[in-house]
Amino acid sequence: MEMASSNTNQEKGIIGRVWERLMTLPKAFKEKVVEICSMTKNIAQEDPRKVIHSLKVGLAISLVSLFYYYQPLYENFGLSAMWAVMTVVVVFEYSVGATLGKGLNRTLATLMAGTLGVGAHYLASLAGEKAEPILIGFFVFLQASIVSFIRFFPKVKARYDYGFLVFILTFSLISVSGFRDDEVLEMAHKRLSTIFIGGSACVVISIFVCPVWAGEELHYSVALNLVKLSECLEAFVCEYFTTLEEGDSINNKSCLKAYKKVLNSKSNEESLANFAKWEPGHGKFKFHHPWDKYLEIGTLARLCAYRMEALKGYLNLDNQGSSKIRSTIRDASFEMTLESSKALKELGLSIETMTKPSAADTHIAKSKAASKRLKSLLQTSLREEKDLLSVIPVGTVASLLIDVVDCIEQLADCVNDLASLINFEDVEMNKSSKTSQSPYCECDEPDPKIDASSHVVILVEESTPTMPKGGKSISDQHNNI
Amino acid sequence: MEMASSNTNQEKGIIGRVWERLMTLPKAFKEKVVEICSMTKNIAQEDPRKVIHSLKVGLAISLVSLFYYYQPLYENFGLSAMWAVMTVVVVFEYSVGATLGKGLNRTLATLMAGTLGVGAHYLASLAGEKAEPILIGFFVFLQASIVSFIRFFPKVKARYDYGFLVFILTFSLISVSGFRDDEVLEMAHKRLSTIFIGGSACVVISIFVCPVWAGEELHYSVALNLVKLSECLEAFVCEYFTTLEEGDSINNKSCLKAYKKVLNSKSNEESLANFAKWEPGHGKFKFHHPWDKYLEIGTLARLCAYRMEALKGYLNLDNQGSSKIRSTIRDASFEMTLESSKALKELGLSIETMTKPSAADTHIAKSKAASKRLKSLLQTSLREEKDLLSVIPVGTVASLLIDVVDCIEQLADCVNDLASLINFEDVEMNKSSKTSQSPYCECDEPDPKIDASSHVVILVEESTPTMPKGGKSISDQHNNI
Repeated sequence: MEMASSNTNQEKGIIGRVWERLMTLPKAFKEKVVEICSMTKNIAQEDPRKVIHSLKVGLAISLVSLFYYYQPLYENFGLSAMWAVMTVVVVFEYSVGATLGKGLNRTLATLMAGTLGVGAHYLASLAGEKAEPILIGFFVFLQASIVSFIRFFPKVKARYDYGFLVFILTFSLISVSGFRDDEVLEMAHKRLSTIFIGGSACVVISIFVCPVWAGEELHYSVALNLVKLSECLEAFVCEYFTTLEEGDSINNKSCLKAYKKVLNSKSNEESLANFAKWEPGHGKFKFHHPWDKYLEIGTLARLCAYRMEALKGYLNLDNQGSSKIRSTIRDASFEMTLESSKALKELGLSIETMTKPSAADTHIAKSKAASKRLKSLLQTSLREEKDLLSVIPVGTVASLLIDVVDCIEQLADCVNDLASLINFEDVEMNKSSKTSQSPYCECDEPDPKIDASSHVVILVEESTPTMPKGGKSISDQHNNI
Repeated sequence: MEMASSNTNQEKGIIGRVWERLMTLPKAFKEKVVEICSMTKNIAQEDPRKVIHSLKVGLAISLVSLFYYYQPLYENFGLSAMWAVMTVVVVFEYSVGATLGKGLNRTLATLMAGTLGVGAHYLASLAGEKAEPILIGFFVFLQASIVSFIRFFPKVKARYDYGFLVFILTFSLISVSGFRDDEVLEMAHKRLSTIFIGGSACVVISIFVCPVWAGEELHYSVALNLVKLSECLEAFVCEYFTTLEEGDSINNKSCLKAYKKVLNSKSNEESLANFAKWEPGHGKFKFHHPWDKYLEIGTLARLCAYRMEALKGYLNLDNQGSSKIRSTIRDASFEMTLESSKALKELGLSIETMTKPSAADTHIAKSKAASKRLKSLLQTSLREEKDLLSVIPVGTVASLLIDVVDCIEQLADCVNDLASLINFEDVEMNKSSKTSQSPYCECDEPDPKIDASSHVVILVEESTPTMPKGGKSISDQHNNI
């Protein structure tokens, strides 16, 4: 009896659960739809260029489809016209550099593989009817294996991976279908010209309709990262040296997390630099712009960020150490850190506006002076302290802050190198006017704005970590759209 | 006269330079060839699976080419057979997961887009001959724009990017070419079946011929990273606390750099986890293996690595601080760090062998005890020290080391979670036999070997930073090859 009742219970349970599940389905569906809508809205608001990119893709594909619609064009190319559509779908990327790189890779690889494929077809046809398929099979196997291996070479992988893929594709198609189709030359020619047409359509649309330059993205994202780090550094010292007394630290939380994005910026920056190398000169950037220098700056920025990650551990209350010493060294630490964070912000803005970081050296010098004062303060205050163990965390924070200052000095050298490489303008701006008045702990205002005499530059923060392409200055965003 | 002679000089100079350039060409060419050969050899020796992968690609393409060679097969599919070749070239990836993911994405997207494309074609044909091309053009524009935008969604980008690309491709091809070709259903059917054949060939070959599992790669690379970090930590304390006295630090240099690879492991681990989710159960891994847990462990490992990066600055001689205090706290620091590094190595090996990290907790407890001793030692030695400023670096190192120990404790929790999630074996190995005898500063022996009673596991280090796929245990490498 007991078993039977438990069985009934179980059955009821299953039916009940299925029923419940069914009843919640419409609600779950509605929630999903709302979620997708809000995500769409977020992505579109964050970077309207993504919406424009989508429309550009639609435009390019529709344009190339004309080959099918118009009789005269269709008669020229026939079925091969579909290669043009395929090329557009595959080659059209978000940034100009990526599109150009893929387009060039695809066209050149098709040209080379087509030539070799026709050659292989001719060679195999010399060997007689029986040996031909065997020889062609051997050729296809050989080139596919060799080229697949070449794709593992790091330099090839970074810039020519897609080209080598298309090489295998075209060689196989031409030599294999050559076995059936005696008009192999014509096929190679048609494939090449349709791919060229599709590729050109992509390149033209991506360059002339609201272009997104990978180089510009790299430029602004490296600049923005420096500004973010500088804010983070300010927020950190404010948080560490003031919480217990003033307790107004809530506004700083978002600033404190900003460095996290910098920690893992490497792969994004590297791919942007690779794309940027394909791009022609545009705006302030020439063809041989020293993109690798940006990678160096990015690496140093990450070194800063690693130290900030180590610093972060000292923000929680158990680990802050003696509050007496903290208040003793507070002013010197503040000065040292804020001066170097000003230098960092100045470096970021100097990259962003491509003007010489004139005041950065002064800030760094002041920061160095403050760091000397900090050391001697530590020396004297250590003597007075009785609970020596609580000194250690404060000393560690001071020591890590000094490391960060050293890092920023290296960054300044690197930015100066970049400035001399591409002749940053030597504008006497009122840049320092705001930063020098900057009160301590001003991080509740999230956007670093700067009122220059001639131009207004506003850096925007991106708030979600999922956005892959780094930051942009609003001014340029408007130019692009 | 002067100008003329300078002109002649210049001309000679140009001719001379061109001549010089020409003369050095064969040498430069030879050097390039030698470089490429040695690179090839390195890549092949480091990971023979790459050679095998290349041969597998050749095999798959040759197999699929049979469609063209054999009359009966060709008659069934005709020109569409080339889609099979294309699919193989595009879908065949290094790991099983990536291949499966791309194959499934491609097949499903073709199925859906084919259906919709046929639907769009039918709908447009209802509208009359004049409106048809306009309607189709509109449909193509609409779907290309919408799908391109959807590709920006982070979740879609991570796992279904290729599928949505193929969706645009297929929809455009089917609906556009449908305008010409009334046998649109047949075309859709042929495209789907050839893609299915090509995809199946890829999947079968990648699974059954020496498979490279992304999940296994992730598993071993996360395990290897922990072991690397543990070596690094040992090397660091050895370097910091012994250089001045013993000066035998040269062997440690390579160990000291090992953590650098961990710093930027995020993107690689994430893509491996994404691939691994496509893979069926294999070997020790079930279908729903908790791959995300590996990402958590990877994140914690990076937190350790960031602290080591901060520690590294204290290795240079100017910044090491008072040698007296260093020798005072030497033993306690050694014990604390070596115990926690043993725990870390144990955790790495426990993941690698999928056995419970039985001794890790003991090591961590010992390390915690040592860290308390270290703190009290610091307290007393600080009182005795006169040059208090030179205390700060030593205190910072101690403090950062304590942070690392905390990090390792969190790692142990995370690994324990993993162990209970997938039921690590509870083997009583002699694991601790070697590690507990381990003399200080043994890093000149680069491979962590462990003699377990039942199985021998050897972890190999990969020496070049360009290898994208993380590490592997030799034993499994042999299984694979």
